[in-house]
Amino acid sequence: MEQINIIIAGPRGRMGSEAVKLAAITEHFNLVAVLDHKYDGMMLSDIEGFQSIHNVPIYTDIEKCLQNVQADVLIDLTTPEFGMLHAKTALSYNVRPVVGTTGFSKENLEELERLCKEKELGCIIAPNFAIGAVLMMKFSQLAAKYFRDVEIIELHHDKKLDAPSGTAVKTAEMISAVREAKKQGHENEKETITGARGAEFDGMHIHSVRLPGLIAHQQVLFGSDGQTLTIRHDSYNRESFMSGVKVAVETVMKHNSFVYGLENILD
Amino acid sequence: MEQINIIIAGPRGRMGSEAVKLAAITEHFNLVAVLDHKYDGMMLSDIEGFQSIHNVPIYTDIEKCLQNVQADVLIDLTTPEFGMLHAKTALSYNVRPVVGTTGFSKENLEELERLCKEKELGCIIAPNFAIGAVLMMKFSQLAAKYFRDVEIIELHHDKKLDAPSGTAVKTAEMISAVREAKKQGHENEKETITGARGAEFDGMHIHSVRLPGLIAHQQVLFGSDGQTLTIRHDSYNRESFMSGVKVAVETVMKHNSFVYGLENILD
Amino acid sequence: MEQINIIIAGPRGRMGSEAVKLAAITEHFNLVAVLDHKYDGMMLSDIEGFQSIHNVPIYTDIEKCLQNVQADVLIDLTTPEFGMLHAKTALSYNVRPVVGTTGFSKENLEELERLCKEKELGCIIAPNFAIGAVLMMKFSQLAAKYFRDVEIIELHHDKKLDAPSGTAVKTAEMISAVREAKKQGHENEKETITGARGAEFDGMHIHSVRLPGLIAHQQVLFGSDGQTLTIRHDSYNRESFMSGVKVAVETVMKHNSFVYGLENILD
Amino acid sequence: MEQINIIIAGPRGRMGSEAVKLAAITEHFNLVAVLDHKYDGMMLSDIEGFQSIHNVPIYTDIEKCLQNVQADVLIDLTTPEFGMLHAKTALSYNVRPVVGTTGFSKENLEELERLCKEKELGCIIAPNFAIGAVLMMKFSQLAAKYFRDVEIIELHHDKKLDAPSGTAVKTAEMISAVREAKKQGHENEKETITGARGAEFDGMHIHSVRLPGLIAHQQVLFGSDGQTLTIRHDSYNRESFMSGVKVAVETVMKHNSFVYGLENILD
Repeated sequence: MEQINIIIAGPRGRMGSEAVKLAAITEHFNLVAVLDHKYDGMMLSDIEGFQSIHNVPIYTDIEKCLQNVQADVLIDLTTPEFGMLHAKTALSYNVRPVVGTTGFSKENLEELERLCKEKELGCIIAPNFAIGAVLMMKFSQLAAKYFRDVEIIELHHDKKLDAPSGTAVKTAEMISAVREAKKQGHENEKETITGARGAEFDGMHIHSVRLPGLIAHQQVLFGSDGQTLTIRHDSYNRESFMSGVKVAVETVMKHNSFVYGLENILD
Repeated sequence: MEQINIIIAGPRGRMGSEAVKLAAITEHFNLVAVLDHKYDGMMLSDIEGFQSIHNVPIYTDIEKCLQNVQADVLIDLTTPEFGMLHAKTALSYNVRPVVGTTGFSKENLEELERLCKEKELGCIIAPNFAIGAVLMMKFSQLAAKYFRDVEIIELHHDKKLDAPSGTAVKTAEMISAVREAKKQGHENEKETITGARGAEFDGMHIHSVRLPGLIAHQQVLFGSDGQTLTIRHDSYNRESFMSGVKVAVETVMKHNSFVYGLENILD
Repeated sequence: MEQINIIIAGPRGRMGSEAVKLAAITEHFNLVAVLDHKYDGMMLSDIEGFQSIHNVPIYTDIEKCLQNVQADVLIDLTTPEFGMLHAKTALSYNVRPVVGTTGFSKENLEELERLCKEKELGCIIAPNFAIGAVLMMKFSQLAAKYFRDVEIIELHHDKKLDAPSGTAVKTAEMISAVREAKKQGHENEKETITGARGAEFDGMHIHSVRLPGLIAHQQVLFGSDGQTLTIRHDSYNRESFMSGVKVAVETVMKHNSFVYGLENILD
Repeated sequence: MEQINIIIAGPRGRMGSEAVKLAAITEHFNLVAVLDHKYDGMMLSDIEGFQSIHNVPIYTDIEKCLQNVQADVLIDLTTPEFGMLHAKTALSYNVRPVVGTTGFSKENLEELERLCKEKELGCIIAPNFAIGAVLMMKFSQLAAKYFRDVEIIELHHDKKLDAPSGTAVKTAEMISAVREAKKQGHENEKETITGARGAEFDGMHIHSVRLPGLIAHQQVLFGSDGQTLTIRHDSYNRESFMSGVKVAVETVMKHNSFVYGLENILD
């Protein structure tokens, strides 16, 4: 495969350090620089934990970085604010952004889409890089056309504050967009203990399980006469995100338009 | 094995007709009479659906039945009222009752226990004959000593009215009886959609899934650092109850005391 | 919806009788005749089990049937030989066939495809009408592009003779068609008891579980760094096939070409 | 609770370092010394990774260690050879051993049992400290009395060399010890691809799944007419062993006899 020259923004973060590892072990990926908010002018190999990553200069200024290195793709794993700035600047230098942050505003997304059209360049913004999770959502949406009845069970460690999880709500939204609305369960069903039937979302039910030991899991159950179909994703650690980053980098080189959400490039 | 002479009360009911089948195919079971509220004096083989069951007289009066046939065990699959009458009368004739109905009062149970003691006879009252379900509850109780965190997910067809299911509540009660009380989940956890965390029972959470296609399923999940333990029962049809009836009949012949709940004879 | 006039071939078979029920309860389905190998000239309501299905004549001769009734679709649930004859004859009368049999030869399929083209008519041949099973296979094929590692576990009652199941082999074939070949597992892996790693199919592994109580279940597991994706289908009874027949009948009215396999009309 | 003074052998190993952490966070555990094969005379806080563990001297000689510190329990997480030596020596100093290694010979176990009897001291040798896994095996053995048909599926990462796993074989052995022997599956069952039905162990079948992403999982499936019972253990990381070590340490103080296998102290 053709070599792809890559800049990584946020190399010392939890996701960013995994991305540096990914670039190091992927033959056709070539890490040419990193963007950090400190250590300008140093080399990445000077930083603890990165001693084996050679010849990668650190920049704190994105303009200076893009002027000095020849890059194809910028992987940004920082924050929505920096992500937006980095994506816009990268596009202006003809570098394709792959951004893994949630929290972009509608205006942000529209601006990036416009820029991509002007420059005829690819750009991928992905709130979730775990390919398995993205496929689970995509398959759920496909299945919902044939199975009107669906319940979602998401299971996480008991340190999680919010219920239901963002992925569960996103899944329900994607299903809602295609299925004929339906209030599920028996029309006279009765909770003898409040909450038994879970959270209701557009007639569907979502159940949030919290237990120590669990990591991040979700199953989507579809039922119709005489059969059930279950789609389940288990995420055990952050490595699960890296296969998605890899696919995004390879795809952004081939697409000349703006993409929001990994589900739109998995076909 | 030694032959066991059996009377079945309620032979035309859903459970009763399965019990007749069980007696027919079990070599050491010998069906000697049935109790019905009609057809007195006829033979079971005269009734539609039972043509192949020979030499089994039908009685409507339990006293007359017990005076005329030599029985070891009475299997009652009728209603709590008849079940109580049948059990008491059977014991007075030295016949051991196996009764599969819920809804006995505390006084009923105490009276039967007293009678068993007097007569030194066995008697088993079992609200649930599905051995798998009973083992699931028993194992859950055992596991709860080592895993304080537990969530219950029960899954049924969408014709079911009540949530949570009786089995789920029974399981939670059995766990409560042994575990150190604990309010589970993050102390500041927040439902962004009401009901997401399910029904709370003594700090545990119970989730009720309803979908067409499903039959009757339950899983009990235990979690602690780095591991989870799951116990699941799937019931596909009424045949699942018959292995429990068989065990109860065999056991009631060996025990000379009163037993409430199949879990107390499975060891 | 527009009414669809339907002929059913094989109305007294296990699948056929379910199809008759389906036609009876579906408002826009109109059963106009049945094809049987006996009872010519009688009405379906004369046959035991069908007393409530009125105004449906029985034919033993397909030509005569097609000449006498005005039909849109022929549902054939007989055998490959009759299925082929029925499909060809139906097309010649401008009636669209929906055929649910396995065992068609390559020549049969090509001949039907040619006939469909000539007549500009739809025709659907579906070896499996369980939509959930078909979606499971389809999703597995999609997932295999992103997950090279996959294992299949199929679980059936212990009366089943062959292992692995036809659906498991079909799933493996569909995955093989798209994934980069890979011999899975550790390169030096060792079975300390022969067979532990299951059946090998093009580098994938298939495991066949057989237990009383089980009906027909399959799960396809995909794994990559830090995550797994599982797709599972549970079939509890024959009703599960009828939603697929319904979709096929509705679709065959809209498509004017030949389709082999339900997976090609679920999009 | 009463304080328990503890020596840990093998503090820098993978299990040992977790045990040091366990002792540090458990209020009634008091780490009084460690045994290592180097660093004699230093303090544990001098060693990288243990800076926060104060006042714990390191010994290389077990006799010297036991003469100098007042201990109740020795936790050994080294090798079978050292484990045996440490256990014997500890008992001679009236210190109760908790040893977490496999590979002890029958003679070793008998010698330790004899020593325990002489000294009237507790000693626990546990090949597996994951309480969830031990309960899974224990419950499987209990269930096997009522369900003669059982299949085991174990699932591990694809770096694992041997199939089936040691835990799967141990589970099968425990089941074999109680169930009436049975050759499962259809009597004429046929593998159309060799290995489909898995490994046979005394009539049971064991299936080994290997996928990247997976960690260490096992499910035991029981089936009988109309129902299945499933017991599953998921191990996500080494922390899962520590709750077992904790229970073993607490139990060894109360028991004055030799115990092999955690299953014998979980009741």
